[in-house]
Amino acid sequence: MGATLDSTPAADGWRMPAEWEPHAGCWMAWPYRPDNWRDGAAPAQRAFVAVAESIAAGEPVSVGVQAEQFERARAMLPGAVRVVELSTDDAWMRDIGPTFVTPGAAGSGGLRGVDWRFNAWGGLYEDWTRDERAAEKVLEVEGAGRYRAPLVLEGGSIHVDGEGTVLTTEECLLNENRNPELSREQIERALCDYLGASKVIWLGRGVPCDETDGHVDNLACFVRPGVVLLAVGEDPDEEMYEVGEDARLRLQGATDAAGRELEVLTIPAPGPLYIEPGEAAGVMPRPGTHPRRAGDRLAASYVNFYPANSRVVYPLLDERFDERAAEVIASCFPERELVGVPAREILLGGGNIHCITQQVPRTS
Amino acid sequence: MGATLDSTPAADGWRMPAEWEPHAGCWMAWPYRPDNWRDGAAPAQRAFVAVAESIAAGEPVSVGVQAEQFERARAMLPGAVRVVELSTDDAWMRDIGPTFVTPGAAGSGGLRGVDWRFNAWGGLYEDWTRDERAAEKVLEVEGAGRYRAPLVLEGGSIHVDGEGTVLTTEECLLNENRNPELSREQIERALCDYLGASKVIWLGRGVPCDETDGHVDNLACFVRPGVVLLAVGEDPDEEMYEVGEDARLRLQGATDAAGRELEVLTIPAPGPLYIEPGEAAGVMPRPGTHPRRAGDRLAASYVNFYPANSRVVYPLLDERFDERAAEVIASCFPERELVGVPAREILLGGGNIHCITQQVPRTS
Repeated sequence: MGATLDSTPAADGWRMPAEWEPHAGCWMAWPYRPDNWRDGAAPAQRAFVAVAESIAAGEPVSVGVQAEQFERARAMLPGAVRVVELSTDDAWMRDIGPTFVTPGAAGSGGLRGVDWRFNAWGGLYEDWTRDERAAEKVLEVEGAGRYRAPLVLEGGSIHVDGEGTVLTTEECLLNENRNPELSREQIERALCDYLGASKVIWLGRGVPCDETDGHVDNLACFVRPGVVLLAVGEDPDEEMYEVGEDARLRLQGATDAAGRELEVLTIPAPGPLYIEPGEAAGVMPRPGTHPRRAGDRLAASYVNFYPANSRVVYPLLDERFDERAAEVIASCFPERELVGVPAREILLGGGNIHCITQQVPRTS
Repeated sequence: MGATLDSTPAADGWRMPAEWEPHAGCWMAWPYRPDNWRDGAAPAQRAFVAVAESIAAGEPVSVGVQAEQFERARAMLPGAVRVVELSTDDAWMRDIGPTFVTPGAAGSGGLRGVDWRFNAWGGLYEDWTRDERAAEKVLEVEGAGRYRAPLVLEGGSIHVDGEGTVLTTEECLLNENRNPELSREQIERALCDYLGASKVIWLGRGVPCDETDGHVDNLACFVRPGVVLLAVGEDPDEEMYEVGEDARLRLQGATDAAGRELEVLTIPAPGPLYIEPGEAAGVMPRPGTHPRRAGDRLAASYVNFYPANSRVVYPLLDERFDERAAEVIASCFPERELVGVPAREILLGGGNIHCITQQVPRTS
């Protein structure tokens, strides 16, 4: 239950499963802060409800909510969604929640979670005391043991293939605003220890203007062992083109934990998209919060989807690209239903569907 | 999960099990308000920790805690206890928590809860918005369906034998500060509907100076079908004597839902006990809170114990009576270990071990 373990998942023979493996459920958090979400967060809340509803059709969803917002969240969310009082500074459960791990051996049961250190994306917000406790609180509710990792890390900065390989970016994990006292090798060691992995593949920069310092979950993800889906820019004059090309070259030159060369699939990056004046006007600016200004570029990406048990919930971002993106994702998960959710309101807050979700793996 | 059901437990064939039936666990809440608990609630917190620890040896314990107290509660409670963020106005989980019900037929699984209306013991405190939501929040965490009862009721005002009989007091349930618009017959009907019962036995007054308006859980309880344990005063010149005698006569004249006459066992009431000046001095008086004054009589009772799975956790209240009380309780539960916990700090806040606990029945 509340026990904090002294060991590491790797030492215990545990590992983070790939996201496409069966889920017991999904955790989200409830957006509310008016200095990040426009119009008192009401439009974002509706978007989050749509995401929760879409995922709940495939697996149980739990949403952590501030005490002050409990009635509102309960009234807006479908009855099948579990609403749990849980204080947060914002609503990015991918980044503040625990990374769940399971025993490596098939058939053995058990659920534990890694509680990483958190510093609000390198200090983007001035207070993150509630976000910093969120992972522990989720683990308490789940009755899952807790590994406390000595590394500043948000869940969105890593992806795994479930077979020993970690995918991440230098822009984020080597950023001096996260773990300046650790070398690349020490960070690789910590990732392998706490994810039950043996190989780290480094990409360079993430999506342009991503305030997370280039989280990999906005740029690329494994879709099965040996296969990576990569967001690419198609306009050679555009910043995203270079980001995609660099990532493609690195992936094509890498091998995974099993020694496989990687197949690289691509999905077009939408936009570029920018914050509209009417959107920025709804945000209440406040010192100590990352500003949302008209004309700022949005870090939009279709890779930021959530693979639920029987369906993939992906963001609708740009009519010029939505359909092509859906075709690519569908080809990656041919046996799952594809559900697009209008996600611009989530994007306006700084992330997308993968950023606001955290899967709980099923244990047998 | 969050679903509120339109029916009643009785209509669905569900019932509240007796407390001695197997438990899946126990819920408590964390005391913190300095206007009710002396010395910033620190001594009460230590007493609650001792209770949680004693129960946790027999069944899983969950403790609901204010966000502001989370770190402190987590540090003070044993690792095996689940600590869950959950806002409350005070810490009486018996009275604010759900009354759990299970399917009537043996062997069928399922857990639901009754969420009664709550008005802070007839308005004893000026704000009870958080306590009023506590039952719903517990049910969300447990993923249990919710019956919403149209009756103001605290869990401490009822006891059941698990076989159709409810025990309660007129002083509380017929008090005009609870359900003035309902007749005795309408209240009996609601009790039977929401507890899956068919017979209500009315006692008269509760323990003297009990601020709950005479909760039955401080006066008497079933220890098995057909057998009631009753607190009695032994000094004929003392107020508790008359209370005990009246209750004894009523019980001896009653039959239960199965038509049985009741056997009445007695346990001595301690004291009378009073708040000491040094104890009252530690409470921060505040308008809108029930005062804790030096010399006020305490509503002490040994009946206010908690029967955990393998052990009964009972309050140590008065050296002159503790040993005799233990012998009586032991004789009621011969196959369970008896664990006494120093409980004066709980008593100073207005209740005791049964008042701060809420069993979750085991369902198979």
